[in-house]
Amino acid sequence: MINEYKKNIESKLEEYFDERLKNPEYKYFYNVIKSMKYTTCLGGKRLRAILCLEACRIFSDNYSAAIPTACAIEMLHAQSLIHDDLPCMDNDDLRRGKPSNHKVYGEAIATLAGDALISFGSQIIVEKTPNNIDAQNILKVLYEYSIAAGAFGIVGGQTADIEAENSDKKISLEHLQVIHFYKTGALFKYSLVAGAILGGADEKQINIMKQFGDKFGLAFQIKDDILDVTSTTEIMGKTVGKDENSHKSTYVTIFGLEEAKRKLKDAIRGCYGILEDNDIKSDVLKEIIGLLE
Amino acid sequence: MINEYKKNIESKLEEYFDERLKNPEYKYFYNVIKSMKYTTCLGGKRLRAILCLEACRIFSDNYSAAIPTACAIEMLHAQSLIHDDLPCMDNDDLRRGKPSNHKVYGEAIATLAGDALISFGSQIIVEKTPNNIDAQNILKVLYEYSIAAGAFGIVGGQTADIEAENSDKKISLEHLQVIHFYKTGALFKYSLVAGAILGGADEKQINIMKQFGDKFGLAFQIKDDILDVTSTTEIMGKTVGKDENSHKSTYVTIFGLEEAKRKLKDAIRGCYGILEDNDIKSDVLKEIIGLLE
Repeated sequence: MINEYKKNIESKLEEYFDERLKNPEYKYFYNVIKSMKYTTCLGGKRLRAILCLEACRIFSDNYSAAIPTACAIEMLHAQSLIHDDLPCMDNDDLRRGKPSNHKVYGEAIATLAGDALISFGSQIIVEKTPNNIDAQNILKVLYEYSIAAGAFGIVGGQTADIEAENSDKKISLEHLQVIHFYKTGALFKYSLVAGAILGGADEKQINIMKQFGDKFGLAFQIKDDILDVTSTTEIMGKTVGKDENSHKSTYVTIFGLEEAKRKLKDAIRGCYGILEDNDIKSDVLKEIIGLLE
Repeated sequence: MINEYKKNIESKLEEYFDERLKNPEYKYFYNVIKSMKYTTCLGGKRLRAILCLEACRIFSDNYSAAIPTACAIEMLHAQSLIHDDLPCMDNDDLRRGKPSNHKVYGEAIATLAGDALISFGSQIIVEKTPNNIDAQNILKVLYEYSIAAGAFGIVGGQTADIEAENSDKKISLEHLQVIHFYKTGALFKYSLVAGAILGGADEKQINIMKQFGDKFGLAFQIKDDILDVTSTTEIMGKTVGKDENSHKSTYVTIFGLEEAKRKLKDAIRGCYGILEDNDIKSDVLKEIIGLLE
């Protein structure tokens, strides 16, 4: 199922960009569309998109209504990667083992491509979501998208992260949790919530997905912090050891490796618990949680 | 009326940001919200917002339904200014006579503030548009917003502009027109279209606003090109003479000053013509066209 989801997402993403790259009206700015496509179609696990499709399937036994939104989420994720890699942010030359966007297209186009991906995501949600989904629900999906994308989502988290790096002191646990909640958690949570809305879930069910998203986002980020000290640049496809190099606060620098591993285990147990307590049957979600073990 | 519109917009913009700046949940990333507010609330003529409110009033005799969208448009405009001023783009230290955003908040936060303004605009449209506007129309307003904001709007125009600057050759008139159509025209057109939709205009009326927006955007850009060679940095509140300094193609460099002035006159006449031909009574639109004379 995960492979089917992934294939679907990747072919739709190609299609959405290629439709535009064939339109001669856009020829004077093909370059920004190519730059948008470059990072969005650079592969990756497509975790967020898969979570979105699976959340839709859980509540409607069909995931097709969520495909455009799942693609929009991948665009948003790509946007955050492009801008995070810029010299004025993390200054990273590598992304998924390939030159990062600004290394290929230059900083100006990379900045613009990120900007445009935010909007292209909303555009695709409106254009491509099937007609049988009512306007109120599409509006909800767009609204939550705008929150996840902005200052009260990934941008807020990234800002809190930058503030932490600029600080001389070790940051508080509260500050670290805010970084994770917004920077990583917001988009995972959105993926699940949007999928659930498109699958016709009721408020209670949407809330369960929110809880799961928060817990999963936390587990994901602790895992990422752990991998930063235990993995290699080759395996990760991005520069590792950066956190320690830049004296960045992470679960590992705050708690030490062993305690971070224990906290990861707790979060993973929490994820399984939410599924069991609410009788949600999903081999896909279980498999994805398993990736963090 | 223009002053009433402007006052309304400016107080609402302050309010939307200040609501968030009072929320302690956001304290670890207040800085990005402050940076968003800084450029958005830096003054300016608020032309786009005024056009939006007036288009709404023309078709409904009331403009309050369009206030949130007019504010969103100013956010989008501020976003484009923040990113355009970045060192990797126009590298401009001044905006409206004040230090540009990245000079105050640094490049990283300025980049993020721009990103977040795109999303905050959509968020505000959904949150603050009055309940009596139906979901279908709000969806239309959001959809057109995503197009105006992205690769098929201001970002596309900015890209075409960068491609022109990077080219050794003088660009074609077609290329220049594409730059203007997307970079400047898209947002003026959106302002009028969104206002019309929120005022309950029908398809034919929306199309008239589109035509007017295209013509007005053209006149505005020619005027801007002319001012760049005839005005001073002091009056404009931004660095002028930049176009010639960077060998940028403009209406003036392509046609010469006199012919550019003639083309401006034609465009202005076209704007008045659209109002007359369609029996649109609007002192505000006439006054705004007059600003370009």
